[in-house]
Amino acid sequence: MQIKKSLPEAVVRRLPGYHRYLCDLCRLGTRRISSQELAKLMGLTASQIRQDFNSFGGVGQQGYGYNTDELRDRIAELLGLGRSFSLILVGAGNIGQALIKYAHFAELGLHIVAAFDTSPRVVEQNIGGIVVKPIEELTAHLAHGGVDIAIVAVPAPVAQDTANLLIDAGITALWNFAPVDLQVPPHVHVVNVHMLDSLLVLLFRMNAAEK
Amino acid sequence: MQIKKSLPEAVVRRLPGYHRYLCDLCRLGTRRISSQELAKLMGLTASQIRQDFNSFGGVGQQGYGYNTDELRDRIAELLGLGRSFSLILVGAGNIGQALIKYAHFAELGLHIVAAFDTSPRVVEQNIGGIVVKPIEELTAHLAHGGVDIAIVAVPAPVAQDTANLLIDAGITALWNFAPVDLQVPPHVHVVNVHMLDSLLVLLFRMNAAEK
Repeated sequence: MQIKKSLPEAVVRRLPGYHRYLCDLCRLGTRRISSQELAKLMGLTASQIRQDFNSFGGVGQQGYGYNTDELRDRIAELLGLGRSFSLILVGAGNIGQALIKYAHFAELGLHIVAAFDTSPRVVEQNIGGIVVKPIEELTAHLAHGGVDIAIVAVPAPVAQDTANLLIDAGITALWNFAPVDLQVPPHVHVVNVHMLDSLLVLLFRMNAAEK
Repeated sequence: MQIKKSLPEAVVRRLPGYHRYLCDLCRLGTRRISSQELAKLMGLTASQIRQDFNSFGGVGQQGYGYNTDELRDRIAELLGLGRSFSLILVGAGNIGQALIKYAHFAELGLHIVAAFDTSPRVVEQNIGGIVVKPIEELTAHLAHGGVDIAIVAVPAPVAQDTANLLIDAGITALWNFAPVDLQVPPHVHVVNVHMLDSLLVLLFRMNAAEK
């Protein structure tokens, strides 16, 4: 089935959550689920879920619901899962080191294969099995190819320069933890994480509830 | 002005981004901005921005645009910023330690005041100026009051029990980094971060572009 490039951004943002829940349901042996049941689990509405699934060809049957295996596989296909991805990390500070040690990448076929930093305090250190390389070796490393995604975890003032360096070296996907929105050319994909945004959403809800 | 409890979830999720950009604009001395200019900066559409701002009473003037100071202050008010928040951390593993050392909390008035863990490897260790306490001291610590938010950064299998313990001790806001959705009673606010969700969004875009 053709992948729709035009899937609405809001639906795209909900795909990872659907994938998580469907993987859990399959693991627990649940073979089918109604939009109502899934809505209750996920804190969404059933009509939202049906509309989302319709938008990418996930079709349930009246009175039967959705086949969890099929739906999980369809979403995994949309996400491009099912193959292995190589990531490099630029910036092995606190966040970077936590990412290297993060246990849940491998479950999705994601592997951090190298890390780079400028600081003599971390270069040559072994962090979770990866020896941090000096940033000067980055371009030569990327010249070998085979890297799918670069994680940017450097301080904000050098984040855009780091991104430019990576893009010049052929990287086309950036997962950015620096607290700035990176500017990239149209052929490059970027997600800017902004760790504190979700905390501000929590603050909003606390504040709204107090009024 | 009255805070609207009913602000659409999609608008709420965009508030932190608006706040970031408006703070930057104010810092750089930009006194006013049109929805078109802001849309270009943020990668949104001008009509989206006008609709969002209308929903919480941010009113621009025809041919003048938005006053950046006023708009920033209005959004800060919605988010409940402008006061100090005390956070505790439960789970001082890799992610937890990176959060303790994360430099950008203080800019928003957020302060991690204590950390708790079960592991003898980290209890009593000084991490970024905070001495990790044994989890057994958590309830007594919370009995003193004054904690606004608990960060949950424990392994997934113990995350719900940890949340229950925190809620029983009076915590009403949880910022959760364990890769599970926490179940909480209606009076408790929770944001489940799911670190890998944004990476899956990046994978989707890479995959969609390849087709």
